[in-house]
Amino acid sequence: MPKQKRSLNNIVNNFLLLLFVVHPNSLKNILIIGAGRSASSLINYLLEHSLHESWNITVGDVSLDLVKQKTNNHPNARPIVLDIMNDQQREEEIKHADMIISMLPASMHMNVAKDCVRFRKHLATASYVSKEMEELDAEAKAAGIILMNETGLDPGIDHASAMRVIDHIHELGGELTSFKSYCGGLVAPESNDNPWGYKFSWNPRNVVLAGQGTAQYIEKGEYKYIPYNRLFTQIDTIEVEDYGLFDAYANRDSLSYRKLYNIAAIPTMLRGTLRMPGYCRAWNVFVKLGLTDDSYKIEASDKLTYRQLLEAYLPSGNQSTKDKLITFMGNEMDAEALHKIEWLGIFEDKKIPVANATPAQILQDLLEKKWKLQVHDKDMIVMQHQFEYTIPTGDGSAKKALNSSLVVKGEDQVYTAMAKTVGLPLAIASKLIMQGKIKARGVVIPTLKEIYEPLLEELESMGIVFEERNLY
Amino acid sequence: MPKQKRSLNNIVNNFLLLLFVVHPNSLKNILIIGAGRSASSLINYLLEHSLHESWNITVGDVSLDLVKQKTNNHPNARPIVLDIMNDQQREEEIKHADMIISMLPASMHMNVAKDCVRFRKHLATASYVSKEMEELDAEAKAAGIILMNETGLDPGIDHASAMRVIDHIHELGGELTSFKSYCGGLVAPESNDNPWGYKFSWNPRNVVLAGQGTAQYIEKGEYKYIPYNRLFTQIDTIEVEDYGLFDAYANRDSLSYRKLYNIAAIPTMLRGTLRMPGYCRAWNVFVKLGLTDDSYKIEASDKLTYRQLLEAYLPSGNQSTKDKLITFMGNEMDAEALHKIEWLGIFEDKKIPVANATPAQILQDLLEKKWKLQVHDKDMIVMQHQFEYTIPTGDGSAKKALNSSLVVKGEDQVYTAMAKTVGLPLAIASKLIMQGKIKARGVVIPTLKEIYEPLLEELESMGIVFEERNLY
Repeated sequence: MPKQKRSLNNIVNNFLLLLFVVHPNSLKNILIIGAGRSASSLINYLLEHSLHESWNITVGDVSLDLVKQKTNNHPNARPIVLDIMNDQQREEEIKHADMIISMLPASMHMNVAKDCVRFRKHLATASYVSKEMEELDAEAKAAGIILMNETGLDPGIDHASAMRVIDHIHELGGELTSFKSYCGGLVAPESNDNPWGYKFSWNPRNVVLAGQGTAQYIEKGEYKYIPYNRLFTQIDTIEVEDYGLFDAYANRDSLSYRKLYNIAAIPTMLRGTLRMPGYCRAWNVFVKLGLTDDSYKIEASDKLTYRQLLEAYLPSGNQSTKDKLITFMGNEMDAEALHKIEWLGIFEDKKIPVANATPAQILQDLLEKKWKLQVHDKDMIVMQHQFEYTIPTGDGSAKKALNSSLVVKGEDQVYTAMAKTVGLPLAIASKLIMQGKIKARGVVIPTLKEIYEPLLEELESMGIVFEERNLY
Repeated sequence: MPKQKRSLNNIVNNFLLLLFVVHPNSLKNILIIGAGRSASSLINYLLEHSLHESWNITVGDVSLDLVKQKTNNHPNARPIVLDIMNDQQREEEIKHADMIISMLPASMHMNVAKDCVRFRKHLATASYVSKEMEELDAEAKAAGIILMNETGLDPGIDHASAMRVIDHIHELGGELTSFKSYCGGLVAPESNDNPWGYKFSWNPRNVVLAGQGTAQYIEKGEYKYIPYNRLFTQIDTIEVEDYGLFDAYANRDSLSYRKLYNIAAIPTMLRGTLRMPGYCRAWNVFVKLGLTDDSYKIEASDKLTYRQLLEAYLPSGNQSTKDKLITFMGNEMDAEALHKIEWLGIFEDKKIPVANATPAQILQDLLEKKWKLQVHDKDMIVMQHQFEYTIPTGDGSAKKALNSSLVVKGEDQVYTAMAKTVGLPLAIASKLIMQGKIKARGVVIPTLKEIYEPLLEELESMGIVFEERNLY
């Protein structure tokens, strides 16, 4: 191509690009559904950008107070009461928006998603792609819209940060031999003032029921299975620079991530959940006792004391309840684990306040009091990816290992690390969609380069940075 | 009343009674649905009585061969192919019968039960009363029919035999303080030639999945819970005269029997399942490994050997698979348990024959080969009730204890103890209904005296006899 013509082409291209940037399209209206805990950072980010981007942001929730509190009289915000079970209202609001962000519980997205396809509106959520969502893929593509899912922390930041490294290794002609990935929503060291090293920054029910089923992963080419009854005894220990050691128990599903991350043949693939050291050994006491079971109700549980509840799960005998537990657990419990259990007050003859509750509900009720994030407490997110791979060299290949770690601390009880790391990826991805910068259509997750690159870049500018460390 | 008039009344009554016995009513046609394993003794009994009672007996099954084999050209038998999903055929057959006996799986009774109410026909099954069945109670009463359920072995003979003792104690003014009841379908000592002392005389799937959930019972006024992960370690040992010791693990539900047996306030109530001594300690290995899980499929399980399967559930390491298992189980496994495990061939590098199977399915497939009841093998039913009660005496009350035990051996692979003890109670109860001897209507189980008295009496005449032993 002659030089002049190329220049002209460039000018035209640049002009088109300029047009695109200045008047990208007519996307102006955002609808955020749900203004709960995880929505604080999301709403803040979008309102801040609304001035420059000329966005109108409608925030709907069943609680108008909550919406008003979160939008704080911002000129570009329109707080509304929204009942998503009201078809007419939901459809009206979706029709008037260009982009919908659903912060609803995972099981409640589908009516919204179907409306988005019908009225040709983009949708973003932080939830796992359900089977029903997956089935909308072809229709969404035909409608020219994006159903963006799994764009929070885990799933979300984990996908983006893992894929950046995996794609990079593949671009270098390398091959992954092992990928282990851990994440935990914890309490910051400065707020860590209970023996468990844990407070709730996330759905307490999920914490109590965590791991039920069988953990499945692959190690050196062999499938491995850990049933729930020994999940908290077969743990890994990992180290994060400046933050020390953590317990890690295996997640239920590690295998499906091989396909998702385009590493179907990788010999070792494990995902795990992080807790402070010693947590798992103590939690195993509840698992072995049976106190995490959510499948049956204890008759008249409010007539029992915690000690009596414990007795109901211990073999009969003449010892004290504590001594019985020590005998029962044998060498599976040490003094530190016993201290954690005792600190919860579970040996005390104090009445259980919940009636006809499942063991898991009784435990959750107790823990919500003991593990409450206090007003000045800071939570902390820790994520670590461990990659092992081979890379071609002049005369063969070299073995390499890389750890990539993220630590994010919350500011307070509202702007928690959890709210930040769940809400900001969703906010940034929504901005990119509004700006027309994401070309993918249909059901997508942030494993695509066009999403994870700008997403991670902007997160970095906000201090959410993975520290990489080459081990060899 | 003057003496003469009373005599006349007696004569009239006796005459009516005579009429009733000779021409009880017009009940002549019985429909048996299902001619499988448990139906052999049932069909035999009813055909034998059909000559004296002038019954026509239709036996329907999806397999005509099976029906013909079981009815063996008996003059009063009408073998038919019956598809219970075919509404028209099912309704026609039910309309033409006076009494229906359903040997279908528990989940398939309801269409039949609804037809029985509609066409005013009596029904008998050996299955637990489901919620749907319970809901037919008022309609069945209005229709003047009986929906007789739980009339096999367990449930069935257990209800009848327990209630006879319980009612007797109550009639004496006594009070039950403890009731433990155990039952097991086992192999007779003369056919016991494998280390587990177990062969399948019953649904193998139920044996593999037995106990999943949490066993609930009450002991000295306190509720007790044993979760599945330790069900086979917290066992009882019971003794049956002439047959020695047995392992007993707790059944999931012992509590609901308190209401059923009219002993709502009893301080100790436990139901358990019997196995030969040592079985539970060995079965616990599979529970702890996770091999009884039926909730997920093993990818390409037919590419694995049994040893490799075991490895997938064991922690990684350099020991042999057997040594790994020994280390893994610690003092929860002894040499005898190891011997049982090894005898199954599970340490061998032999290919698993089932593809994409759950761990429980793989285990079941293996056990069906190893625990097969052979042609000349005899099975054995063992049941034991242990009662403790107080009885009023001249100057207070006395403590008493009574064991009531039943042992029934099978004749061969077809007339198993299981088929006898499931089929005969159902057959006898059906005969009593046909003869108009049971007055109850609606949904009933054999806890009623008018049922259990003649039922147990006739079972005794057939050699199914509880041996009672007063301990003190």
